Amino acid sequence: VTSREECIARDAADPMAAFRERFVVPENMIYLDGNSLGLMPKSAAARVQKALAEEWGQDLITSWNKHGWFDMPRKMGNKLARLIGAPSDSVVIADTISINMFKVLTSALAMRPDRKIILSDSGNFPSDLYVAQGLNTFLDGRYEVKIVAPEAVLASITADVAVVMLTEVDYRTSRRHDMAAITNLAHAKGALTIWDLAHSAGAMAVDLSAADADFAVGCTYKYINGGPGSQAFAFVHPRHQTTAMPALVGWWGHARPFDFDLTYEAAPDMRRQQSGTQAILSLAALDAALDCWADVDMVALREKSKSLCSLFISLVEEQCAGLGLLLAGPRDMAQRGSHVSFHCAQGYAVMQALIARGVIGDFRAPDLIRFGFAPLYNTRLEVFDAAAVLADILKTASWNQPRFLQKKAVT
Amino acid sequence: VTSREECIARDAADPMAAFRERFVVPENMIYLDGNSLGLMPKSAAARVQKALAEEWGQDLITSWNKHGWFDMPRKMGNKLARLIGAPSDSVVIADTISINMFKVLTSALAMRPDRKIILSDSGNFPSDLYVAQGLNTFLDGRYEVKIVAPEAVLASITADVAVVMLTEVDYRTSRRHDMAAITNLAHAKGALTIWDLAHSAGAMAVDLSAADADFAVGCTYKYINGGPGSQAFAFVHPRHQTTAMPALVGWWGHARPFDFDLTYEAAPDMRRQQSGTQAILSLAALDAALDCWADVDMVALREKSKSLCSLFISLVEEQCAGLGLLLAGPRDMAQRGSHVSFHCAQGYAVMQALIARGVIGDFRAPDLIRFGFAPLYNTRLEVFDAAAVLADILKTASWNQPRFLQKKAVT
Repeated sequence: VTSREECIARDAADPMAAFRERFVVPENMIYLDGNSLGLMPKSAAARVQKALAEEWGQDLITSWNKHGWFDMPRKMGNKLARLIGAPSDSVVIADTISINMFKVLTSALAMRPDRKIILSDSGNFPSDLYVAQGLNTFLDGRYEVKIVAPEAVLASITADVAVVMLTEVDYRTSRRHDMAAITNLAHAKGALTIWDLAHSAGAMAVDLSAADADFAVGCTYKYINGGPGSQAFAFVHPRHQTTAMPALVGWWGHARPFDFDLTYEAAPDMRRQQSGTQAILSLAALDAALDCWADVDMVALREKSKSLCSLFISLVEEQCAGLGLLLAGPRDMAQRGSHVSFHCAQGYAVMQALIARGVIGDFRAPDLIRFGFAPLYNTRLEVFDAAAVLADILKTASWNQPRFLQKKAVT
Repeated sequence: VTSREECIARDAADPMAAFRERFVVPENMIYLDGNSLGLMPKSAAARVQKALAEEWGQDLITSWNKHGWFDMPRKMGNKLARLIGAPSDSVVIADTISINMFKVLTSALAMRPDRKIILSDSGNFPSDLYVAQGLNTFLDGRYEVKIVAPEAVLASITADVAVVMLTEVDYRTSRRHDMAAITNLAHAKGALTIWDLAHSAGAMAVDLSAADADFAVGCTYKYINGGPGSQAFAFVHPRHQTTAMPALVGWWGHARPFDFDLTYEAAPDMRRQQSGTQAILSLAALDAALDCWADVDMVALREKSKSLCSLFISLVEEQCAGLGLLLAGPRDMAQRGSHVSFHCAQGYAVMQALIARGVIGDFRAPDLIRFGFAPLYNTRLEVFDAAAVLADILKTASWNQPRFLQKKAVT
């Protein structure tokens, strides 16, 4: 397909190559797990150190105003908005995906009081399903949490569906839903949509406005590189912002939080999707990461993502032909996200062998070896070398040695 | 009452004095706002730097196992448990107070399906009330969120109350509820109790076990010194841990989170009160703070807290006699927390004048000037000097100058 030298040449000519310099890249490692935890921006340490020494250590309580802690969720939401095609003041950064999913799901359900179906699919990240199931258990099964195959979603959007809740890109197979088509049909049937962008934001040019999405949530510690467990985001379309009322609220969502009224009055904007005080040190690291995105062309980013993924698929299918691998998800790059998974019968052992040789991907049960390609920092040379190591492992069957066959917990 | 020299001498003889050395104390400042944001432990910067450079920067995704990220909420919960009189494995550290309140409130309500009253009081922190009100709005007013005066709580615990939800120490007046007596009566009436320990944990020897409390939540960024917005804690009595089922769940609460099942199955322990991935950098700072508490005698801590608060009350009432101050809350130290507030007609301006002179307290509407005494690091000398500055300001009426009369947002 291509040579190592050609990959090096293409990397050298890549106008996006310089972005890699913004990150700490561990030596002797090909890191293909940015879809799980992104690399650390070089600017993160200084930003967090400032938050520690100057803000917390010296300015203490005055930092809420002096260093803008209180407004971070909204200001950072506005930094992120461009990456997901959202207008200003429609995104806040706070809490976790599960919590934000709970907020927007309850917001949406309250807007469709006569409908009883929450529609999702088996390609959704399980935690999103758990959120719906946990809520429904509390409500004594008032709703039906309907989980269909990804291919059956469109046909399942009937006039009794309250909410269509999907993750755009499947965390295992990389299969990508058609956000606009599904949203369009949902609206035609009177349903609302919630999109989980965990494997989309920072991996491609998401366009929530063009898709006319109602609600979205997503992750900042994967492709956005915000740090371990960095806060998630929530999006509410401007047309819903004064209608949507989450079941989970708190003082950061009050119209006048410092009046300390005894009665809740929701802020007339996105603030109502905030609830409690946010963990500032983690927000500071994420803020540094968001600043790394200010000059990134999202269309070019998507093209680079497609280029890296298709190169990897080609190389692996050429070099590992006949060695038992089968591509997961569709072949059309337009229908994929930015990671590539292969079914592999000894997948767990193969991934352990890859990690031992410095190629960091991960394993997802029952048989997927998964490789994430972060277009902001991964290179074609890394793609080439990772494919070569994978082929070598499969050919020499080093993964078949007993030490690799002992399974243990995978995070 | 006492002299400055005597305060210095008592500080020198204080067996707890050495704990102050564990914290960064800004120069030229008497910090009496540790009840809002505690001082930074000296060990926090190095701990966070390790989490950045070594854990995130180099070890990346392997840190979930290698550096125990995944178990931090439970391990840190066990470090905190002693401070609040909770047994092992009954506390997790995650999310925010509002979110944890939502989890334990929904857990408790589901355990009392035939009861319709959530009882609280006007001394509760408003965000706790907002949580109950927001939930009730979503449930179309299924419950009555009953807010009575603090003195009326006991008489309001009737046989139709599902949950008694109170903050032990009033964030304004410092009035402290009798946790054991209220819990005892609640149980006699068949109700469950939820205690918010925001102004108790790290300020006094809380004993949840002795009080037989059902649920508790609390804050770690005040007296615990965990850092701005550091994660909150949740406690569930062991007898409820396999029964209590929050409405808000997520993958960190699943019995087997890495199986990625499509169906939620709650972990058979405190993990079910966790939901999503936690912000690790902020957890790391909090972990450093918790280690500062390992050798603190909580009974001695409470005695020092009482000593600091009663000294401040005495000094202020002596030196500011006739200057319009009135102590808020009860006079009996056993019925108080670790902060002292005075009603003061020009309170906002007076607090601005105090801050301008390096005495950092805060103002709470309508007329309270509030001073927090963190027994782990505040000194009697600070108490003496703060009272003297307050008296000087009130006597010279510098607060009456126009620049202090212009109100602005107070955090």
